[in-house]
Amino acid sequence: MILVLKEGMDLEAVHRVEAAIRRAGGEPRRLFGGGAAGGGVSGRDAIEARGGDTRELGSVPGVAFVLEAKEPYPRVARREGGTREVSVRGTKIGGREVVLIAGPCAVESVEQLEASARAARDGGARILRGGAFKPRTSPYSFQGLGEEGLVLLRTVADRLGMAVVTEVLDTQAVALVAEHADMLQVGSRNMQNTALLRTVGRQSRPVLLKRGMSATLEEWLLAAEYVADAGNENIVLCERGVRSFDPAARNLLDLSAVPLLRARTRLPVIVDPSHGVGVRSAIVPMALAAVAAGADGLIVECHPDPGAAKSDGFQALAPREMVALGAQVRSVAAAVGRA
Amino acid sequence: MILVLKEGMDLEAVHRVEAAIRRAGGEPRRLFGGGAAGGGVSGRDAIEARGGDTRELGSVPGVAFVLEAKEPYPRVARREGGTREVSVRGTKIGGREVVLIAGPCAVESVEQLEASARAARDGGARILRGGAFKPRTSPYSFQGLGEEGLVLLRTVADRLGMAVVTEVLDTQAVALVAEHADMLQVGSRNMQNTALLRTVGRQSRPVLLKRGMSATLEEWLLAAEYVADAGNENIVLCERGVRSFDPAARNLLDLSAVPLLRARTRLPVIVDPSHGVGVRSAIVPMALAAVAAGADGLIVECHPDPGAAKSDGFQALAPREMVALGAQVRSVAAAVGRA
Amino acid sequence: MILVLKEGMDLEAVHRVEAAIRRAGGEPRRLFGGGAAGGGVSGRDAIEARGGDTRELGSVPGVAFVLEAKEPYPRVARREGGTREVSVRGTKIGGREVVLIAGPCAVESVEQLEASARAARDGGARILRGGAFKPRTSPYSFQGLGEEGLVLLRTVADRLGMAVVTEVLDTQAVALVAEHADMLQVGSRNMQNTALLRTVGRQSRPVLLKRGMSATLEEWLLAAEYVADAGNENIVLCERGVRSFDPAARNLLDLSAVPLLRARTRLPVIVDPSHGVGVRSAIVPMALAAVAAGADGLIVECHPDPGAAKSDGFQALAPREMVALGAQVRSVAAAVGRA
Amino acid sequence: MILVLKEGMDLEAVHRVEAAIRRAGGEPRRLFGGGAAGGGVSGRDAIEARGGDTRELGSVPGVAFVLEAKEPYPRVARREGGTREVSVRGTKIGGREVVLIAGPCAVESVEQLEASARAARDGGARILRGGAFKPRTSPYSFQGLGEEGLVLLRTVADRLGMAVVTEVLDTQAVALVAEHADMLQVGSRNMQNTALLRTVGRQSRPVLLKRGMSATLEEWLLAAEYVADAGNENIVLCERGVRSFDPAARNLLDLSAVPLLRARTRLPVIVDPSHGVGVRSAIVPMALAAVAAGADGLIVECHPDPGAAKSDGFQALAPREMVALGAQVRSVAAAVGRA
Repeated sequence: MILVLKEGMDLEAVHRVEAAIRRAGGEPRRLFGGGAAGGGVSGRDAIEARGGDTRELGSVPGVAFVLEAKEPYPRVARREGGTREVSVRGTKIGGREVVLIAGPCAVESVEQLEASARAARDGGARILRGGAFKPRTSPYSFQGLGEEGLVLLRTVADRLGMAVVTEVLDTQAVALVAEHADMLQVGSRNMQNTALLRTVGRQSRPVLLKRGMSATLEEWLLAAEYVADAGNENIVLCERGVRSFDPAARNLLDLSAVPLLRARTRLPVIVDPSHGVGVRSAIVPMALAAVAAGADGLIVECHPDPGAAKSDGFQALAPREMVALGAQVRSVAAAVGRA
Repeated sequence: MILVLKEGMDLEAVHRVEAAIRRAGGEPRRLFGGGAAGGGVSGRDAIEARGGDTRELGSVPGVAFVLEAKEPYPRVARREGGTREVSVRGTKIGGREVVLIAGPCAVESVEQLEASARAARDGGARILRGGAFKPRTSPYSFQGLGEEGLVLLRTVADRLGMAVVTEVLDTQAVALVAEHADMLQVGSRNMQNTALLRTVGRQSRPVLLKRGMSATLEEWLLAAEYVADAGNENIVLCERGVRSFDPAARNLLDLSAVPLLRARTRLPVIVDPSHGVGVRSAIVPMALAAVAAGADGLIVECHPDPGAAKSDGFQALAPREMVALGAQVRSVAAAVGRA
Repeated sequence: MILVLKEGMDLEAVHRVEAAIRRAGGEPRRLFGGGAAGGGVSGRDAIEARGGDTRELGSVPGVAFVLEAKEPYPRVARREGGTREVSVRGTKIGGREVVLIAGPCAVESVEQLEASARAARDGGARILRGGAFKPRTSPYSFQGLGEEGLVLLRTVADRLGMAVVTEVLDTQAVALVAEHADMLQVGSRNMQNTALLRTVGRQSRPVLLKRGMSATLEEWLLAAEYVADAGNENIVLCERGVRSFDPAARNLLDLSAVPLLRARTRLPVIVDPSHGVGVRSAIVPMALAAVAAGADGLIVECHPDPGAAKSDGFQALAPREMVALGAQVRSVAAAVGRA
Repeated sequence: MILVLKEGMDLEAVHRVEAAIRRAGGEPRRLFGGGAAGGGVSGRDAIEARGGDTRELGSVPGVAFVLEAKEPYPRVARREGGTREVSVRGTKIGGREVVLIAGPCAVESVEQLEASARAARDGGARILRGGAFKPRTSPYSFQGLGEEGLVLLRTVADRLGMAVVTEVLDTQAVALVAEHADMLQVGSRNMQNTALLRTVGRQSRPVLLKRGMSATLEEWLLAAEYVADAGNENIVLCERGVRSFDPAARNLLDLSAVPLLRARTRLPVIVDPSHGVGVRSAIVPMALAAVAAGADGLIVECHPDPGAAKSDGFQALAPREMVALGAQVRSVAAAVGRA
C-alpha cells in the first residue's frame, strides 16, 4: 500500500507518518515524488507500507490518499464471517474442531486398506485418504489400482462410517472419481493444471487443493480462485512442504503458511506432515506443530505394516503410532483453544 | 548407508532385504554390482538405505556387510545421554523446561531497554536479548550503540536478575562482548565466518549459533563443530528461517529442523519466530508451533512501543503480547510433556 | 557409484584409489565397512565417487567391485550415437545448426500474428511459436483464442513456410492441437501432469517439454521418459528458468542445465531466455550465452509492438531486435563451432 | 515506480498510460486510490510500473506525478560514464578486454603453484589466484598454508610477471594479506561479514567481492556499498553460483546476474564457473556462456594434476584444458565485440 502525503510536509511530519505505519504493524519505505508532469507537483512524497490496515493508515494526519492493489482472488479472499466451513459428508473442516484425515498412501488391497482405515479411525480420523490414481515421478513406479481402488475405498469407508478423499489426475477422470469419493484431491503436481482446476470447479464435491512444489501463497490462492470461479467454493487448502536446498528432508514443511493464509483467505487450511517432511521420526512433532500453528486439520499416512508398503512406506505411521498421534493432537488442540 | 549383499542371491531374497529396510523406517534404492575388477565378483548387488539403523540392518539375512560415511561432526553429534544442557548464568537450555529469551532487536536507550526487559521478564524470560552491534544489510542502517549498548544490557539485566545474550560481529570484539554478556550470539550472516567461530570457541561463554540464510543442517552442524573443536561445547543452535522464493514472509521458518536436528546432534535447539517469519500476526502461532515441535526454547523480540523501534519494529511484540505469549507457551509445553 | 575395496588394504592404498577417482574427474567420499553380518567381513572399506567412469574406476588396483544405481530413464538416457535429431516439419533440432523458434506469447489477431511471424522469419526462425491456449496464474487473465488461434497459427505459418509449435493444456485437447500444429508444447505448469505426458506420447507429433518451475534435472528427464515410454521419442527439452529467492528477475535461467543434460540425455536441449529472465534488457545477452553454453536452439518471444501485447509484452523483442538477435546468434554459434 | 494519475480519468485514458508503460519496457500493475483522508481525493488512481524510465513515464499524458524509491546503494550504482575500470597491478577489469584470472584452488607447494601459474599464464591469465587462507565447511578440511602460501603466491607471480588475488578471512589478517597480494578477495561465506567489508574498504588494494550463497543482487550491491562507503571504490563483483534445490550441480550459476547487474551498477562483473557449477565437463561451456552474457572476466581453477589436488580438484582444469579455454574465450569474446 502506498500512502501519498500532502504537499509541503517537513521531515518531522514524515517521521510521524512512518511511526504511525510502524505502530499499525507495517514497515515503511520512503518514496520520493519527482519527474513531475503537467501540474508542478514535484516535491510530493509518499511512503510504501508493507503491512498495516488501509483504513487506519488513510486517516493518519499528513496522508492525502492511499493507493492499493486490488485483491487478485476475490472469491477466496478473507472477509467478514471468518473461515468458511467445508462439509465432507457431514464432517466440517474449518470449524472449532481439528479434523484428522488418514489412510494409506496408495490403495493396495482390501486387507491393507481396511487395516489402515481402522487404524485411522482409531486415531480419530473421520475421513479416509488413499490413492487410487497415483502421480509418480517415474513412469516405472506403481501408479495405483485405478477404478478398482476407488471401489475399495468406497466399500471400506462405508463399512467404517468414514468419508473418502482421493486424488484425481485428469479432467477425463473427474466424473468417475466424484462418483466414488466424497472429496476430490488436486495434487501438488497439478496445482496449476488449469483445465483440471476448472473441471473440479464445475462439479459439486468439495476439493482438497494441495500446494504446488514451489508455489507462492498468491499462486496457490489463484489456483483456488480457478476452482471457485468455475462454481465450487468448497475448497480446503493443504500445505505439504515446498522445495528446498537441504537434502535433510524430502520437502520443507512451511507451517508459517497456516497463519499467513489465515490472514488472506477464508478457506480452511490443513497440513500434510507425511509428505511435508518425509522422515518418519519428524512426522508426529510436525503434526503437533501444525495444530499449534492453527491448522484446521491434518492429513497423515498410516499403514498396517509401513515396511511393506508399495509406495512411501517410510513416511507412514503404524496403527499404534496413529492412535498415539490422535491423543496428542487432542491435547495440543485443547492447549490452543481448539477441539 | 549401503548394504552389500551376499553373492548369488535371487530376486526374492533381495525383496526381503528391501522390506527389512522399509520396516526399519528406511527407503531402499537398488544398486547393481558390475565393472568387476580382479576377483570376478561381478553380479554382487547392494542396496542403499536412506534411514534405518546400521546395526539392525547389518544383521538382516542376506546382507554381507554395511558401508557408511563416518559422522562428519563428531563433537556435536548425538550420542547416548541425550541433549546436552547448556547453562547460561544458571538457566539451563536443553532440559525439560522450555526457555524463553526476549528483548528488543537493538538496544536504543536505557528507558527502551528497561521497558523491554521488564516485558520480557513478565512473559517468563530469564535471558535478555538485545543488539549492541547490529549486522545490517545496508551500511546506512542503524548499526547499534556498540560498547555503550553492552553496558546498558549488563546494567539492566543485573537490575532485573536476568542473563544477557548479544551478538558479536568480529574476532576483535569477542573479548569485549564476553566481558559484558553471559552468552555470545553468532548471527546468520556470520555462520560460516570461520575465524569468528574459532575465536568464540576459545573463550568460555556459551555460544548461540544462528542458522545461516541458506545453510543445510549439515553445514550448520559443521559450523558448530568449529566452535566445539576450538574448545567450547556449550553451544545452542537457533533456527531463524531460511531463504525462500515466496515474498509472503521475510524468511521461511523451518520448524522441521527441530526434530531433524534432535536426531543428529546433542546440542539444544531453540527457535526465533520473530526473524523467522517477520510478520507480526504469525509470530505467536509459530512460537507455539516451535514448542509443539520440540524446541528447547524461543527467542523473541519485544519492545515497549514496537511502532517506534529503530529496527525491525514490525516483528516485535508489545509488552501485553509478550505476557500473553508466556502463558500460551506454558500451556502448549505442558501438552507435549515439557515445562 | 560405490567402489568396494579389497580386504586388508592400508591407508596408502586407499589414498591411491582416491587419487585415481580424482584423476578420472570424480570426487571421492570415504565409506567405512562395519556392522558385519554373518561372514566376519568387518573392516572392508569403500569409497563413493561422485563423477568418473564406471569401467575405468572398476579396474583401479585395490577395487574389488563397483556398485551403481541403474539409469532411471533408459529411453531418454545418453547413449552412443550422440544427440537424437528431432525433425519438426523438416527442420532438425539437435544437429549442427542452432535452431531459432520465435513468435508472440499469445495469438491475438491475424495482423499481430503475421507481423510477429515475419519478424521471426526475418531473424532466422523457421518455427513459429504462439499460444492459442494460455496457462495463466490468474483465472482473470487472458486465456488465449483457443481453436481460432490454432487456425490462425496454421494459416500464417503456411503462408510464410514455417512450422508451428503451440502449447496443449489438457488431454482432451491433444487431438485438436495435433491437427493444427507441427510440434506440441507441454508447459512448465504441466511438466508432471502425467496423464498429459502419456497422451502426447501416444500421438506422433514431436513434443517440446518445458522444465517445471522447480524441477530437478532428474525429474525433468523422468517426465520425458513418460512421453517416450508411451511411444514417442521425438522430444526436445526446453530450459526456461527455475524459481529463485531473488526478485530481481522473473525466474533464474539455469544455463548449466545445457551441459549437464548433454551428459545425461540424448534429447536435444533448447533455451527460452524470454520467460527465463523476464527482463527485456537481459534477453539478448542470455540468448547468446545459451548458444555459447551449447544449446541446440532458442525459443524467444517477439511482437510487432511489445508495448501493446496482451500478455508478457515486457519480455518480447521488437522486429528490429529480432533481426539483430539472429545475426548475433549466428556469430556466437560460429565461435563455438555450430552453424 | 508509481505513476499517480490525474483526477477524473476514464478507463480508456488509464489504458493509454498502461500501454505507454509497456512501450517503455515496463510492466504495469493497477493501484486503486481509496481510504481518502482530509481532502476528498478518493477515486484518484495510480499504476505501478516494474521497469521503464522515470523521466519518460513522468511525462506521459494523464500522469500527475511519479513516485520512486531512492537508490539504496548510491556509491556503486550505475551512472553516466559506464563501467568503472578497476586496475589490478596494471591489468584493467571493466574495459573492452575480457580478463582471465586463474590458478589453483589452494596453494599447496611451490612446484604445484608454479606449474598452475604457468598453465594460467599460457591460457592468457594475467592475474594469479590461489588460496592461502581457505574457508572450509568442515574444521577438519585442509585450511591452507597461511602466510607461507602468501609468500609463495608473491614469489611465483613476480617470477611470471603476474598479479595476485587471494582471499582474506578475518579483519585481523587484512594488513598481512594486503602486503603480499594485489587484490583482496572477500568470499561468499563472508559477503555479509560487515566488519571485514569495512576493513577492506579502509585499505587501498582493489577488492574482489564474491556473491553470497543466496544473496539477492540488492544485498550483494549493498555489501559492495559497505566497502565503497569505507573509502574503497575499486571493487569487482564475482558471480559464483547460488544455492539450488537440484543436487545435479554444486551451485546454480546465475549468468543472468551479468546483464542484470550491468543495468544496476558501475562495478565490473566477472564469473567463476569452477565453483559455479562444480562439474568438470560443464566448466568450459559455462565460461564461454559467461563471456557471451557480457562478463568482464573469468576466474577459473587450474592445477597441474587435478586428480591430486588437496581441495576441489574435481573442478580444476588441467594445463592443456586451460590453454584451450583461453583460445575459445578469445573467439567468443570477439563474437560479442570484446577483446
